[in-house]
Amino acid sequence: MRGRVGEGRPVVAIVGLGLVGGSLARALTRAGYQVLGVDRPVVLRRALAARAVALGRSLGDAASEADVVVLAAPPDANLRLLRDLARRPTPLPVVTDVGSVKGAIAAEARRLGLDRFVGGHPMAGSERSGFAASSAGLFRGRPWILTPSGSRPEAVRAVRALIRAAGARALVMTPGEHDRAAAFLSHTPQVASWALLGAALADPVARRHLRMAGPGFHDMTRLAASPRRLWREILAQNRGEVVRALGRLARALERAGPGGPSLVSSRRRGSER
Amino acid sequence: MRGRVGEGRPVVAIVGLGLVGGSLARALTRAGYQVLGVDRPVVLRRALAARAVALGRSLGDAASEADVVVLAAPPDANLRLLRDLARRPTPLPVVTDVGSVKGAIAAEARRLGLDRFVGGHPMAGSERSGFAASSAGLFRGRPWILTPSGSRPEAVRAVRALIRAAGARALVMTPGEHDRAAAFLSHTPQVASWALLGAALADPVARRHLRMAGPGFHDMTRLAASPRRLWREILAQNRGEVVRALGRLARALERAGPGGPSLVSSRRRGSER
Repeated sequence: MRGRVGEGRPVVAIVGLGLVGGSLARALTRAGYQVLGVDRPVVLRRALAARAVALGRSLGDAASEADVVVLAAPPDANLRLLRDLARRPTPLPVVTDVGSVKGAIAAEARRLGLDRFVGGHPMAGSERSGFAASSAGLFRGRPWILTPSGSRPEAVRAVRALIRAAGARALVMTPGEHDRAAAFLSHTPQVASWALLGAALADPVARRHLRMAGPGFHDMTRLAASPRRLWREILAQNRGEVVRALGRLARALERAGPGGPSLVSSRRRGSER
Repeated sequence: MRGRVGEGRPVVAIVGLGLVGGSLARALTRAGYQVLGVDRPVVLRRALAARAVALGRSLGDAASEADVVVLAAPPDANLRLLRDLARRPTPLPVVTDVGSVKGAIAAEARRLGLDRFVGGHPMAGSERSGFAASSAGLFRGRPWILTPSGSRPEAVRAVRALIRAAGARALVMTPGEHDRAAAFLSHTPQVASWALLGAALADPVARRHLRMAGPGFHDMTRLAASPRRLWREILAQNRGEVVRALGRLARALERAGPGGPSLVSSRRRGSER
């Protein structure tokens, strides 16, 4: 416990109280952590009123008072926050993040010499966003990826404890493995959801008959309601892997489609050409 | 009422008691129809035991006894059944089908001079299949497309009554409109579901970390459990529209991806090249 706050309880500062940060604040408060919130005044007021956080703080105060700082802003802002923290004269607490891309922030932490940084990514979420969508149970039973890559063991232990307290299970892998797998399991499905909805809306006949869509179409386009600005940053930070996975998806679409080898035998395809 | 069966109730014969045919049998029996089932003995026994149908019949007996025959076999079998019915010497009852493609069977009915045929497509289903997955409530509140194209008005009325009895709402359009819209709203999402799962499984890193997939990936690959053989027939019958919609999807994927114009401004894209 670093400051006077906490009163014997571990102190965690959460920077950004949106869907993920707000849910983590609620879960950790419930688990007995002293949670400091860092966000705009209007969001802090809501989080304080909901008793999701104990106190509102500036980033500088949070960094000097907390045992662990969690960066829960959009991915590009998390990179800026990390650089901001690294410039401070006081010794830094353990720092982790909850961003959807791990390579970029791990490289930045390495460049800044932050060996108490441990990248993380809770595999939980929703197409909804903002503190209003947050809930203490968001992480319960969900995987939470940890990508330590050179982090000090006591920093990894502190972040593991926080993940357990949120009800999630830690899965350790390298930032590169995470970004490859996330490209196929999260980032490309997100792009596909937009593309399916976009292609249907761009066709005048399909658009006119949208109400004939069944539960399959609704499931596959649910993610299209996700916040675009946040996702632009995610896709840009994981650009290489996402472009590669989209290329694989394009080939898989050809194979699974009516002209693909899984549908028509090579003999029949030959005769059709 | 054409035969001795029915006892004053409308008689409908359902050919193929899978997910859709079995569910329709249950719904219409519940609504007071006399339902004749046409299927293999093993399926008929199950449908009789579940009281989904009143009697098992051959196709020929069903055609001479029923007021309406519903073709609920896979799409290619429905085309063969329609030709088989057209060859019979007795006058035909009203015939409808529940297939996912309407252009091919409408053209066949026209070629055979069947003006009491009315194409239909209930927009309800599941990735599960077979009589075991059937339920009386499958169509409740769902749209049920009707594509009359030259059908006699009393035939359309009889099929509309059946759709209402199943709890669905009739939507009338041309076979061409249906097949265009279904390509975007049903057939292409099905192909995309297989492709997303296939691409992830083909990548060794994504495959190893499949358990990190969240609810978004699970929703988007749920349809991949759908019966492949049935879907090959659907995609082949609607080949032209599906190939076109997949082309639109491929372009929408590029636009929505990290290199697309919705993500990076043209200036920035220029400087990256």
